[in-house]
Amino acid sequence: MRKYRNGEIWAFEQETTVTRDGSDVVLGLDGGTTSTVCVCMPLIPFSDQLPDPLPVLARAVSGCSNHNSVGETAARETLEQVMAEALSKSGSNQSAVRAVCLAVSGVNHPTDQQRVLNWLREIFPSHVKLFVQNDALAALASGTMGELHGCVLIAGTGTIAYGFTEDGKEARAAGAGPILGDWGSGYGIAAQALTAIVRAHDGRGPQTILTSSILHELDLSSPDELIGWTYADPSWARIAALVPVVVTCAEAGDEVAHKILLDSAEELSESVKAVVRRLGLCGEDGKGSFPLVMVGGVLEANKMWDIGKEVVKRILKDYPGAHPIRPKVEPAVGAALLALNLFMKESKGSLKS
Amino acid sequence: MRKYRNGEIWAFEQETTVTRDGSDVVLGLDGGTTSTVCVCMPLIPFSDQLPDPLPVLARAVSGCSNHNSVGETAARETLEQVMAEALSKSGSNQSAVRAVCLAVSGVNHPTDQQRVLNWLREIFPSHVKLFVQNDALAALASGTMGELHGCVLIAGTGTIAYGFTEDGKEARAAGAGPILGDWGSGYGIAAQALTAIVRAHDGRGPQTILTSSILHELDLSSPDELIGWTYADPSWARIAALVPVVVTCAEAGDEVAHKILLDSAEELSESVKAVVRRLGLCGEDGKGSFPLVMVGGVLEANKMWDIGKEVVKRILKDYPGAHPIRPKVEPAVGAALLALNLFMKESKGSLKS
Repeated sequence: MRKYRNGEIWAFEQETTVTRDGSDVVLGLDGGTTSTVCVCMPLIPFSDQLPDPLPVLARAVSGCSNHNSVGETAARETLEQVMAEALSKSGSNQSAVRAVCLAVSGVNHPTDQQRVLNWLREIFPSHVKLFVQNDALAALASGTMGELHGCVLIAGTGTIAYGFTEDGKEARAAGAGPILGDWGSGYGIAAQALTAIVRAHDGRGPQTILTSSILHELDLSSPDELIGWTYADPSWARIAALVPVVVTCAEAGDEVAHKILLDSAEELSESVKAVVRRLGLCGEDGKGSFPLVMVGGVLEANKMWDIGKEVVKRILKDYPGAHPIRPKVEPAVGAALLALNLFMKESKGSLKS
Repeated sequence: MRKYRNGEIWAFEQETTVTRDGSDVVLGLDGGTTSTVCVCMPLIPFSDQLPDPLPVLARAVSGCSNHNSVGETAARETLEQVMAEALSKSGSNQSAVRAVCLAVSGVNHPTDQQRVLNWLREIFPSHVKLFVQNDALAALASGTMGELHGCVLIAGTGTIAYGFTEDGKEARAAGAGPILGDWGSGYGIAAQALTAIVRAHDGRGPQTILTSSILHELDLSSPDELIGWTYADPSWARIAALVPVVVTCAEAGDEVAHKILLDSAEELSESVKAVVRRLGLCGEDGKGSFPLVMVGGVLEANKMWDIGKEVVKRILKDYPGAHPIRPKVEPAVGAALLALNLFMKESKGSLKS
């Protein structure tokens, strides 16, 4: 990955890029803790009938842009570089940009938002519409095709539920990390499986085939060795990678693994329900319709034991109007669609009702 | 703290120490993750009637001697230094030592034990009896006054249950750290309290006075800020330090705090029961008598809501022969008594039945 200093990126591009016949474009960014994706799309009229497939002009990928992980300078460099690359690949340039939606993890407070907006404004002139949000927003928009309405449940290594109403209210649940009880997440599932092995070994819990399956997966010979393995590198993703083993054990009929997955489904559905309740997404009679976008490895496991399906079942019981969606496009495209949608709304000078 | 290189400690001592009329002594060491304590005691006959108070000649304190935390070289230096200091303070010297019991955290496997024995043997000649064990052993012996029999429950920042039978069998439960489910520990209690605050804030759990009490304790203004506080320094001890706040909330009638403490008591008693069961400490009829030594901040909280009392109640229900003991001497004295006891047994050439 090339490193640029702020400003140099754009100077470099202006010298070398052949512009794409001056057509207007929008940029959508999804910045996660492992990678950052930017897509460039043409400024098409936003309507109920979007073209299929969507006209994505270019896609660029870079590293982490979470300022909590890499610091502000590196985060900014990464974001600037990936935007420049997407524009360059699409044969466009900075002056063709009409709107940017930047959805990055770690943007939680208005102060984070304002700081990112300020330096985006240094790059783009005042007529360019800028939207800065948490990455959950891109995930939601990838399911709703750019509409900022509904609830998104993300469950990968971590988990969070995020909801938005059409009149601009938002709420979240979970997303506080494993110490603060995100037990439905991939990390939570795997940590509980490891705990179950230790308990069985101690004689504090029932025997389970998780023991042989996970020890085999990790190439360990005894549960005692799990302590060393766990604390040698307690990275959440490394532990969460054991989720497929837990699912396989549950599918083989293991009661302990089965209960861990049921508990996870309960936790995840409770996060969604808390958001729906607080925002009144289900309407006054509790039966109103709203999009429920489901994203992340834990929910996408399309196996016999389907955690996502179990989560949806529990939500529908309380909120029959929930409309589950598994997105067909990636979150960065969701961000670009959101940029398009917001640009149209602002251009019309009024919010869509 | 002065730093010595191996060997130099003893050279230094031999030059400067005035010997204590050649009387034989034993050393007891308790090596934890925060500090290491060494006591020097005279070689008194070990019987059912130990002198009261015990004739402790000297006590020395040094830093961490857990090789997992500080590395083997530093751990060894700390242990050598603290022994030399205890001998020097008691007006004794190396040649008067008849037995050493070294109980250090991080000694879990026979290989750890053998490594420590090997370098102790470089210091002490072959007629000196050497015993190397986990620090739980010193805690047990501090309650049993040197007898290696019964079960010890330690619950401070972490928790472990360790049991020993008179014929040399041992078993443990828990002690695997927070990721692997030591939920009854001080860390476990506090982490669940923090989780309860996040849940209440999300609308996923009942309201609780833990919110106002803990935010006030940490000088934070909103539950959102807990995420930053927690991950800024996720040291277990820092989080476990919140246990007294949880106890105060439970005493004030808060249901959520009350349930967290009940769950903790359940977890801790389950660890003890697993050890008792595996070792058959309660005899064949389940009613046999055995010492149950209770150590650590979580169990010593002598408040209205007494976690230790709750734990004992649950254990006695299953094992009425459990004899709870809160030690009057510190673990290092327990280790010294153990050294005395084991020395006597080995000198007699037979194990005490």
